[in-house]
Amino acid sequence: MARPPDLSFPMHSVDIDLGDRSYSILIGSGFLPDGIARLADIRATSAVVVTNATLARLYLKGWSGFLATVYPRVHVVELPDGEEYKNWDSLNRIFSALLEWGCDRKTVLFALGGGVIGDLTGFAAASYMRGIAFVQIPTTLLAQVDSSVGGKTGINHPLGKNMIGAFHQPRLVICDLDTLDTLPKRELSAGLAEVIKYGPIADMALLDWLEGSLDAVLAKDRRALAHVVQRSCQIKAAVVGCDEKETGLRAVLNFGHTFGHAIEAGMGYGVWLHGEAVAAGMVMAAELSHRLGMVDARFVQRLTSIIGRAGLPTRGPIVDAADNAGRYLALMHVDKKAQAGEIHFVLIDGPGRAVSRPAPDALVRQVIDACCG
Amino acid sequence: MARPPDLSFPMHSVDIDLGDRSYSILIGSGFLPDGIARLADIRATSAVVVTNATLARLYLKGWSGFLATVYPRVHVVELPDGEEYKNWDSLNRIFSALLEWGCDRKTVLFALGGGVIGDLTGFAAASYMRGIAFVQIPTTLLAQVDSSVGGKTGINHPLGKNMIGAFHQPRLVICDLDTLDTLPKRELSAGLAEVIKYGPIADMALLDWLEGSLDAVLAKDRRALAHVVQRSCQIKAAVVGCDEKETGLRAVLNFGHTFGHAIEAGMGYGVWLHGEAVAAGMVMAAELSHRLGMVDARFVQRLTSIIGRAGLPTRGPIVDAADNAGRYLALMHVDKKAQAGEIHFVLIDGPGRAVSRPAPDALVRQVIDACCG
Repeated sequence: MARPPDLSFPMHSVDIDLGDRSYSILIGSGFLPDGIARLADIRATSAVVVTNATLARLYLKGWSGFLATVYPRVHVVELPDGEEYKNWDSLNRIFSALLEWGCDRKTVLFALGGGVIGDLTGFAAASYMRGIAFVQIPTTLLAQVDSSVGGKTGINHPLGKNMIGAFHQPRLVICDLDTLDTLPKRELSAGLAEVIKYGPIADMALLDWLEGSLDAVLAKDRRALAHVVQRSCQIKAAVVGCDEKETGLRAVLNFGHTFGHAIEAGMGYGVWLHGEAVAAGMVMAAELSHRLGMVDARFVQRLTSIIGRAGLPTRGPIVDAADNAGRYLALMHVDKKAQAGEIHFVLIDGPGRAVSRPAPDALVRQVIDACCG
Repeated sequence: MARPPDLSFPMHSVDIDLGDRSYSILIGSGFLPDGIARLADIRATSAVVVTNATLARLYLKGWSGFLATVYPRVHVVELPDGEEYKNWDSLNRIFSALLEWGCDRKTVLFALGGGVIGDLTGFAAASYMRGIAFVQIPTTLLAQVDSSVGGKTGINHPLGKNMIGAFHQPRLVICDLDTLDTLPKRELSAGLAEVIKYGPIADMALLDWLEGSLDAVLAKDRRALAHVVQRSCQIKAAVVGCDEKETGLRAVLNFGHTFGHAIEAGMGYGVWLHGEAVAAGMVMAAELSHRLGMVDARFVQRLTSIIGRAGLPTRGPIVDAADNAGRYLALMHVDKKAQAGEIHFVLIDGPGRAVSRPAPDALVRQVIDACCG
């Protein structure tokens, strides 16, 4: 199943500068069994690994064995696998376990998993005894390129996704590219949607590079993957840098997400993966930018082409046979990003530059009609 | 029941300097019905008052009527009254209400109540959409002198008190001394325990003043109460100032709390009020300091005397007829402040100066034997 780690492969890293909450993202192959020297800086009386059943089977033995060489005590909390478990019950299972084991503030949590495990574990770390340390070991491309930077943690509420949470920065992020070997192709593609996103909004050189190297990325070539993760984290860090608590500037990271959230909600959460919805949403947002005279048709075509090559949908689904555009608009209006009744779209104001602003409903309808089904 | 507000009484205030999280504590009488001009600085699309049934009956009409003149929408979440409701269920009631009302990040929560309401509401504000604004209107002396400064918020877990929470600073604290008119005498005394505490650990002038003015405080004289709240907040702010996230220096605020927590746990939570347990705990900690040669017997006598005059217990209870000192020690060992097996006591290292350090078990036993029953 897994190829042997490439021990000759040089480790990449990205330093996130947040004053006394600064941390590093390590990106590499063959971290185990030798382990990571940087963990020695994170002192703790016990380490608690939070993971799910699927990942436990694949990676837990290696990681917990290694952590036992660094920390006096190592415990494991194994949660069920799936977005539906990103809730209070799972969070409380972590809290109860920590209390039963007598874990104090000198405990470090390790989130071994994708976005669900990372968000849950991060919020547990933010809230346990009002804040303890945590380390992320993201095991999906999406989590590596998106959750590594920004400090967002949280859980879902029955009335809304990601409504309860905290900003809590990890002490270290370890992106072990070897874990991507077991990632299903569909999820690799979904992760690539967020990578492609960084091109139009901030760095067209990344889009150029992807056009030349996408086949290597899809073949999980270590060097290609390392570049993808490193550049994505660097760009996100630059955007988030001025806006740690999400007051507005960060909004450009939501390129494709306004349409994308409508797709996810309209199809029922989980039918389209988040990245798939964002992919089709980016095409729609690019088309809207074009119709507002902000980019040319060639730009939209170029973006559509790379999205298709990445194995992602380039057209939105029909979410309502009777009034598809109306349903999209209704869903976007209830989205939490709708401000004072107006829907804000992240639009491309020339290649590599994004802005957030409202757009006329009639034009949005035309774009939905042109880009769906 | 309530005396008319003293409108001629000048408002006191304490400014808490925390950079971009700075806020003011307003202390006064007759805030209502004229309201507080400072609220105009806290812009929000809706205000949500969190309170309990008892306080709702006394104060809600005045406050919600006033808030309706400042904010477009005002909602109320009424929770049951009692420490046993400082839990996830109450927190989730707040979240559900906020989501049902469509509250966004531009919502401000008002905590109208004592410590339970303040801790719950503060944690709800810390976690809702990863952090929204909140204002405290503490209605007990304890909450006014203790919860106004420090930013601690949180809930209890079945396996431990205050185990889940966040540091989240309020945008404003309004200490309306008029609300103390309805405070039972026993709770006024319990609040005074934390006031008395600030003398031995930081400011003997406050102890001198209390010795001369305690009768006025107990009679709820506005000027005396204002001084008590203002000085307590100033002293706590000075101590917390260098140690916002509680890394160690703040420990001196726990004078009397190590013995006190053992009393609360040994008697069953709620049998002794927190302030009552801290009062007896301060006598024990002072006696321990004396037996370690750090303060003279007169100091212990002086502290014991003011505690007794405030209507507080000066001796600890017998928590175990067979082995009282052994039970105290066992309870202190499981307390979260026990580090690496050693119990740390806050001791008085000369009047107005405190230190945190371990003490020999045999000596602690002697103190318990001398100070209980």
